[in-house]
Amino acid sequence: MKLSEIGEFGLINRFSPPFLHGLPAGVVGIGDDAAIIDRGGGEALLVTTDTLVEEIHFLRAKTSPRDLGEKSLAVNLSDIAAMGGTPTSALLALGLPRDTSVEWIDEFFAGLHDLAALERVALLGGDTTRSPGPILITMTVLGRASLSHIKRRSAAQAGDILCVTGDLGESAGGLRVMLDGLPLGDDERYLLEHHHRPRAHLAEGRLLGAQGGVRAMMDVSDGIDSDIRRIMEQSSCGARIELEQLPVSAVLRSACVRHGWDMMELVLTGGEDYCLLLSVDPSAMASVSRAFRQEFARELAAIGTITRARGRLELFRDGRPALVGKHGFDHFLGTSA
Amino acid sequence: MKLSEIGEFGLINRFSPPFLHGLPAGVVGIGDDAAIIDRGGGEALLVTTDTLVEEIHFLRAKTSPRDLGEKSLAVNLSDIAAMGGTPTSALLALGLPRDTSVEWIDEFFAGLHDLAALERVALLGGDTTRSPGPILITMTVLGRASLSHIKRRSAAQAGDILCVTGDLGESAGGLRVMLDGLPLGDDERYLLEHHHRPRAHLAEGRLLGAQGGVRAMMDVSDGIDSDIRRIMEQSSCGARIELEQLPVSAVLRSACVRHGWDMMELVLTGGEDYCLLLSVDPSAMASVSRAFRQEFARELAAIGTITRARGRLELFRDGRPALVGKHGFDHFLGTSA
Repeated sequence: MKLSEIGEFGLINRFSPPFLHGLPAGVVGIGDDAAIIDRGGGEALLVTTDTLVEEIHFLRAKTSPRDLGEKSLAVNLSDIAAMGGTPTSALLALGLPRDTSVEWIDEFFAGLHDLAALERVALLGGDTTRSPGPILITMTVLGRASLSHIKRRSAAQAGDILCVTGDLGESAGGLRVMLDGLPLGDDERYLLEHHHRPRAHLAEGRLLGAQGGVRAMMDVSDGIDSDIRRIMEQSSCGARIELEQLPVSAVLRSACVRHGWDMMELVLTGGEDYCLLLSVDPSAMASVSRAFRQEFARELAAIGTITRARGRLELFRDGRPALVGKHGFDHFLGTSA
Repeated sequence: MKLSEIGEFGLINRFSPPFLHGLPAGVVGIGDDAAIIDRGGGEALLVTTDTLVEEIHFLRAKTSPRDLGEKSLAVNLSDIAAMGGTPTSALLALGLPRDTSVEWIDEFFAGLHDLAALERVALLGGDTTRSPGPILITMTVLGRASLSHIKRRSAAQAGDILCVTGDLGESAGGLRVMLDGLPLGDDERYLLEHHHRPRAHLAEGRLLGAQGGVRAMMDVSDGIDSDIRRIMEQSSCGARIELEQLPVSAVLRSACVRHGWDMMELVLTGGEDYCLLLSVDPSAMASVSRAFRQEFARELAAIGTITRARGRLELFRDGRPALVGKHGFDHFLGTSA
């Protein structure tokens, strides 16, 4: 049997058991955005790792090395944000083919360094190795959080209100602009910028972590349609999403009309949004929304609810069941792009 | 300019500056086997990351997935050993091509899990991704150590006695057996086993870490000839190695005769020995040796001395300057294998 037959979820289910057993007290491993290690005194150490592989996650000819250096850190910062934490340090494992130009390397490190300096993340070193082909980037980021502020994927409860902290689908739109080689107007540049330079919602994560009414939280990396299933699985629940409530920027809306894109597909399954997806105790929704609005001068978007229908994701449009096309994106399944 | 023109040391020198600046107090980043984060109370958190890439570090057809799972953890444990520390937890970033068999994955995780259980290392999860070609394995290992037990590469002093904790060249011999497809007698199996299943010298590292007379320490990953230069660089010193004192097993000696191998090349530049290389205050050598012998029932091998001749590595045989062939191995330089 090949990996392409079982897919990424199959793989994760397959290798999870050894990761779930034998963990010492106070340690939470697989199953959330970052691992949690209780340091005592109410403080936790957070650890997360993410890989970007050329041809899978980026195309060398279409991505500036400076953006890539920044993005390789940002996607890991997003995992720390999802835990309500603050990143502290990072390690880089970098695999480079021999023909990589020194200028490429310098620009990559400049981008990485700039974001690390901005977020006060100490770059601790790592490992360099030769690659037989693709550029390989694995970042590991450490962070800290108050144990009481950490939001687990397993904490959602039926009746919770599902929210996101930012607009969806812009990165996916930027990817389409890039892959289709579209002429660059202001809108296309805006979408490309969101694809190449995602922003981790660290401040949002910290504020929401401090709100007792926020229950489950994670970052949106694979797309809402795929990511919500992880909360459903960890919390043994279902979810209902109101499609018309998904926050979509005016720029993406007009680009979808102009280029004939299926907006709902980009918004639901595009991925790489790197905003946060969270579930909120309905009795706390007003105070959480107010705190969010006061801090960030924009709205926390309510997009649906957590339901009791374990494992069932329901999509509604204007109060009626809706059908949409592709569901999620699996890196391994033979049938996916 | 291409990476192949500046090599791995050129790359490290190039990207080190951003990693050296802006580190908070109590944090040591690049330049040692693991990063050090002062946790207060005399305790440090250690972090290290290492990558194994198919075709560069292993050949899928020649390596059992179980051995590879074990080795991918062992090489990181070796970095913790070199700091005098104890490993506590690990994260795995795994990149797999679609045609990877599920049996391969199961065996890989079995090997990883067995060594993790043996060394009481908690597997915290990580990241899985698709690879466009080679299997990609990046492990990150966390550990702990008393700050007072940590041995830095920068602590060697002229006059120190250089020692290693195990025989050299066996992994390189096993690699030759494998690549040349030699018939497998007992000796060849023994060497292959050392290549595929390196043992991190964790107990040795902990004992030597507790010895005040041990100054610098690191693990032997690239080969003595290459690794000693890192101590020389960090400690602004030189080194003199007495070739006839390098510990070589009877098995490797006889295999070298039988197969016509250049023994000194394997021993000096073969790499992947994963024993420890250390410098010892000469006035403490007797007590350090005694402690090592009592604990491990074998000798700590003295192989040379640290000198004042900054940047100069001198190789002597029976008291006379010696010439040897290849020097070290650089993953990137165009002239290397």
